[in-house]
Amino acid sequence: MNKNISFAEARTITPQGVHNHTEALVVEEPLEIRIGFGAGDERQRFSVAVTMRTPGEDEDLAVGFLFTEGILSDFRQVMALKWQDDNTLLVELQPGIAVDTERLSRHLFTSSSCGVCGKASLDAVQTLSCYYPLPGQPELDAQVLYGLPEALRRAQAAFEATGGLHAAGLFDAAGQLLLLREDVGRHNAVDKVIGAALRSAYHLPFREYVLLVSGRAGFELVQKAAMAGLPLLAAVGAPSSLSVRLAQESGMTLVGFLRGERFNVYSHPDRVRTRR
Amino acid sequence: MNKNISFAEARTITPQGVHNHTEALVVEEPLEIRIGFGAGDERQRFSVAVTMRTPGEDEDLAVGFLFTEGILSDFRQVMALKWQDDNTLLVELQPGIAVDTERLSRHLFTSSSCGVCGKASLDAVQTLSCYYPLPGQPELDAQVLYGLPEALRRAQAAFEATGGLHAAGLFDAAGQLLLLREDVGRHNAVDKVIGAALRSAYHLPFREYVLLVSGRAGFELVQKAAMAGLPLLAAVGAPSSLSVRLAQESGMTLVGFLRGERFNVYSHPDRVRTRR
Repeated sequence: MNKNISFAEARTITPQGVHNHTEALVVEEPLEIRIGFGAGDERQRFSVAVTMRTPGEDEDLAVGFLFTEGILSDFRQVMALKWQDDNTLLVELQPGIAVDTERLSRHLFTSSSCGVCGKASLDAVQTLSCYYPLPGQPELDAQVLYGLPEALRRAQAAFEATGGLHAAGLFDAAGQLLLLREDVGRHNAVDKVIGAALRSAYHLPFREYVLLVSGRAGFELVQKAAMAGLPLLAAVGAPSSLSVRLAQESGMTLVGFLRGERFNVYSHPDRVRTRR
Repeated sequence: MNKNISFAEARTITPQGVHNHTEALVVEEPLEIRIGFGAGDERQRFSVAVTMRTPGEDEDLAVGFLFTEGILSDFRQVMALKWQDDNTLLVELQPGIAVDTERLSRHLFTSSSCGVCGKASLDAVQTLSCYYPLPGQPELDAQVLYGLPEALRRAQAAFEATGGLHAAGLFDAAGQLLLLREDVGRHNAVDKVIGAALRSAYHLPFREYVLLVSGRAGFELVQKAAMAGLPLLAAVGAPSSLSVRLAQESGMTLVGFLRGERFNVYSHPDRVRTRR
């Protein structure tokens, strides 16, 4: 039983007639992320966000979110992950880790609705991220890039069933899929895969890896990738104007419209090797 | 010159070679929405949200957002819309209109990241929306629904150029497109079309109209449609589990996978008429 999927009665209507059936739907439920921090009597709990997500790998999501939003900078700051109810996850920080809740609440508050505060975030991401990619490294063969979407799709079981999930995959420079995460929200899929990497043996910055997303490359995704020091972000869909600007400024190679044996490069093309 | 579009140098890479060219990108920029309220010396200004949006029809977006988030309930509450800089729009409310900023800041704060607080919002939308659709009304012919996506696509000029814009269209029950809005964010496209309707001659509730969205029907979009009393929301893509639940509970007909002469109905199918 896949907890990413629930079932509903649906009626398919075509000119040939009406057909009632049971259909698989992607599950979407709220997750509240809280942090616990400070020490002793001063210990506080603070609600950071409620995000609509597909349940599963929520610990990855919470950790990834706290990192890509610049609230945490190192996985060793996390002491424990505790479920408070089905949809509330408390991230307990190590004693002594300080969080500026006023700044945090202002940051998260103004970034409501679609996740990021553009101008402020363009500045913020460049202040917060200590992980600029190394120029020209790693080099990736165009042939390797062509193969990424198919590798992602092969690994996506739930997607085929519901048609409703976004995916994010972390690959090495040889095109090997290392981690895949899915979610109803594209930003959550990216947070999950970055959080999963942080919780595994992967250490920041992720300078040797590339990230593929199944949809478009919106500003928010470029920002999250930049926070992790990823040198290349590839998207099956289109980038936006601000995505390209942030990728250019942060030294990241941004690839869009990666479909079949074809893609576009919008920034720092020196990382892409063509055999000619 | 379309201000939805900017241009960037891109490099297309295929096995046949490398081709440098100029490419159209969808513009994504932050919009800060502020409200001004109270009277006389007590007049306050309050930053409500910063949303990443495609510039254009920002007044529609601001009004639609304030309405679908339950901050405003009637367009007559708005006194004036004033630009404070290129990306900051102040919505001045009529004197005497009260806004509970503490509730607001808590609501918007916890709904950061992907726009809605599921459980809380499921309750909230049912408290806030005074506009339940009327059972079984309006009736829509399946033939009319088949035609909606093509009507939307025909009207979408920018989409063809960049591949990066979501669209939302308001139709009447005969399938006539009344209003179309586009944005890099699907929730923004819906806010824009609802805001545009509020600013035009359309009066709430929108019980005679149907809304079509070009992507998936996430919870947030169903919530926004429910706030406007829309009796039918159709999506080209998939719904989620929570979308279906909210549609069922709020009396809305939810249509998904509307492609060619085919669609699925997930709730309240009595509004859809099939000629057999």
